[in-house]
Amino acid sequence: MGTHRSVLPVSQESDLPLSNSRFTVDTWQDRISRAQEEMRKQQVRALILGPGADLIYLTGFHAHVSERMNLLVLPQEGKPAFVTPLFEAPLLGDDPSALVDLHTWSDGENPATIAAGLIGDANPIAVGDALASMFLIRLQSQISATWQEASPLMRELRMIKDDAEISALQEAASKTDEAWAEFIDSVTLTDLTELEALKILTDLTAKRGIVNIWGICGSGPNSASPHHNAGDRKIQPGDAVVFDWGGQIDGYFSDMTRTVHVGPPSEEFVTCYETVLQANQAALDAMVPGTPLEQIDIAAREVIESAGYGEYFLHRLGHGLGLEVHEDPYVVRGNTLPLAPGMVFSDEPGIYLAGKFGIRIEDIVVATPEGGRRLNHADRTLRIVE
Amino acid sequence: MGTHRSVLPVSQESDLPLSNSRFTVDTWQDRISRAQEEMRKQQVRALILGPGADLIYLTGFHAHVSERMNLLVLPQEGKPAFVTPLFEAPLLGDDPSALVDLHTWSDGENPATIAAGLIGDANPIAVGDALASMFLIRLQSQISATWQEASPLMRELRMIKDDAEISALQEAASKTDEAWAEFIDSVTLTDLTELEALKILTDLTAKRGIVNIWGICGSGPNSASPHHNAGDRKIQPGDAVVFDWGGQIDGYFSDMTRTVHVGPPSEEFVTCYETVLQANQAALDAMVPGTPLEQIDIAAREVIESAGYGEYFLHRLGHGLGLEVHEDPYVVRGNTLPLAPGMVFSDEPGIYLAGKFGIRIEDIVVATPEGGRRLNHADRTLRIVE
Repeated sequence: MGTHRSVLPVSQESDLPLSNSRFTVDTWQDRISRAQEEMRKQQVRALILGPGADLIYLTGFHAHVSERMNLLVLPQEGKPAFVTPLFEAPLLGDDPSALVDLHTWSDGENPATIAAGLIGDANPIAVGDALASMFLIRLQSQISATWQEASPLMRELRMIKDDAEISALQEAASKTDEAWAEFIDSVTLTDLTELEALKILTDLTAKRGIVNIWGICGSGPNSASPHHNAGDRKIQPGDAVVFDWGGQIDGYFSDMTRTVHVGPPSEEFVTCYETVLQANQAALDAMVPGTPLEQIDIAAREVIESAGYGEYFLHRLGHGLGLEVHEDPYVVRGNTLPLAPGMVFSDEPGIYLAGKFGIRIEDIVVATPEGGRRLNHADRTLRIVE
Repeated sequence: MGTHRSVLPVSQESDLPLSNSRFTVDTWQDRISRAQEEMRKQQVRALILGPGADLIYLTGFHAHVSERMNLLVLPQEGKPAFVTPLFEAPLLGDDPSALVDLHTWSDGENPATIAAGLIGDANPIAVGDALASMFLIRLQSQISATWQEASPLMRELRMIKDDAEISALQEAASKTDEAWAEFIDSVTLTDLTELEALKILTDLTAKRGIVNIWGICGSGPNSASPHHNAGDRKIQPGDAVVFDWGGQIDGYFSDMTRTVHVGPPSEEFVTCYETVLQANQAALDAMVPGTPLEQIDIAAREVIESAGYGEYFLHRLGHGLGLEVHEDPYVVRGNTLPLAPGMVFSDEPGIYLAGKFGIRIEDIVVATPEGGRRLNHADRTLRIVE
């Protein structure tokens, strides 16, 4: 799971620096070259990206998401151009011109015209997934071309993590594991509200240097809603409680879910918990390189179906994780892409019985030549807590 | 100014309830009717909206922004439809079918096909500004139509605030004023980092019930970058310090900026400060109903130009404020839309001298039949602090 709601105090918010110990200007230059290589392969003539993870991946630029246009125009050959509001240029670091030709605009000017001039007659044009439609529509009114999604292009790059990325993901996962261990060993859940419990957990996570933390906590019947927003419901004996949270290290996310039970659980809960746990392991065991991704979903689903709870596993097995909490590759029926070393995604089967309880057990896993490897190691056996 | 970065601890995050003391299901039904009326006027046959402020304005739905499609399809006549992932439906409240026909989809299904079927042969189609381009491109591959921006339609509704909206904006502004007064009377800035100072200010704001708080703090030379992200720079004597922050009450934002000086300021700083203050007042004085909005920008700009600093006023005078920190109407050269009672926007002139200092003074103002009225009343005279 995972949402993009930030839940951290200001002192722990921080942008990914333009470069840091893991990622430098060489990283961005290399990624831009590889993007252009992929564009040649896919016969894409121009790639346009607004603010967001694709832009950060290629340039390290943390441009603002707003009604003001920020746009990277990457041609198939040569240096990329970047269109940005004049007064936001300082956000691009000291020397953005090492990477891009900068085209600033002032309030009252029309940046779509500047961007259209830079795109010229390139065709087809790949458009970043997250670009706000208003900017696309403005460009479409000036340029006649074939517009296609950029994800088939960007995912070829972003889907396979390199060693620096995996080390960031591992560090984020390990710190999240540690936060969970401290939390579940020290806190009495009964009488805390979902928000209070989640706050303690995310504070313990933040203490370890993780930033831009988001989180979900669902208790009792709320646990059966996979994307429940934590609220003021008080946790009580008899509740299943689902915690699903994460945050970033050097821009790369963690994402983990653990489900606990307050007081003695019903037989049905125990059965479902063991089923979900077996499904989680079955998915890991299915991670043989070359396996179509949907088979990993199916491996987990079959365990849950055999137990008679198939219809209550409401979502896909998992999603890629990196600069975004949800990104390619998706482990879902219909995705026949073969598993390749370097892919990182969530293994998160669940069973949700409306009105009763929900259970989800989620770890981040990485594909290696030898099979699946977990990045999360926090205890996943059934915990009965107070 | 204003960014959308949330800077609050989890315990203070909360979604706008589907209804509350100010806004109820009647509100949404009325707004949907008015949107359809406006569609008939503008000859728009279908309006499609993803998650975001437009959707909240019309339905109160806080749908998730993610790679999974959530889409409102509003026809010119009749009940709207809403396409949503099956397991996210609980986020729409207990009885979304009072407002919309719900069309859920499961992982593995193609929601774009469902949405295309609901849109049918409606043409032209207005597209919400914030809808991610990937969804628009998927719809464009299935439907041949004229696609246009929804903002000319949505702004006709959202731009003019009703009494309930103005009361929420006033409450948010007043609580932000109070937080500032407590902050600036009690805190010694010297030796705090920008992040530390901003954290104190936003905590004081949160204490008053404001949620989803964002903030900017720029000190010394950083104050000259209007969208500077607060960082680890220590505030020191001789610094100008710009604080620009806000948050939501019942979904409606505050947004205020105050600039202070640590220790004795230079003559140039004092001159610039007084100039910005006069420009702020000149804009308010220009708020006669019917005045083209750009004239309000010009009124402030002339003050700054007369003082010889015209080129250092890097941005427009202001932006509308409501469910978003930046929304229509924009007070900028080129916008000849006449000022109308109920418009709410920021009055935020500034002077930015690179390497030296920046000054911005920002209040939220509302247009009334009698002229402009400030929602913010926090002291705006020059404060010399420690």
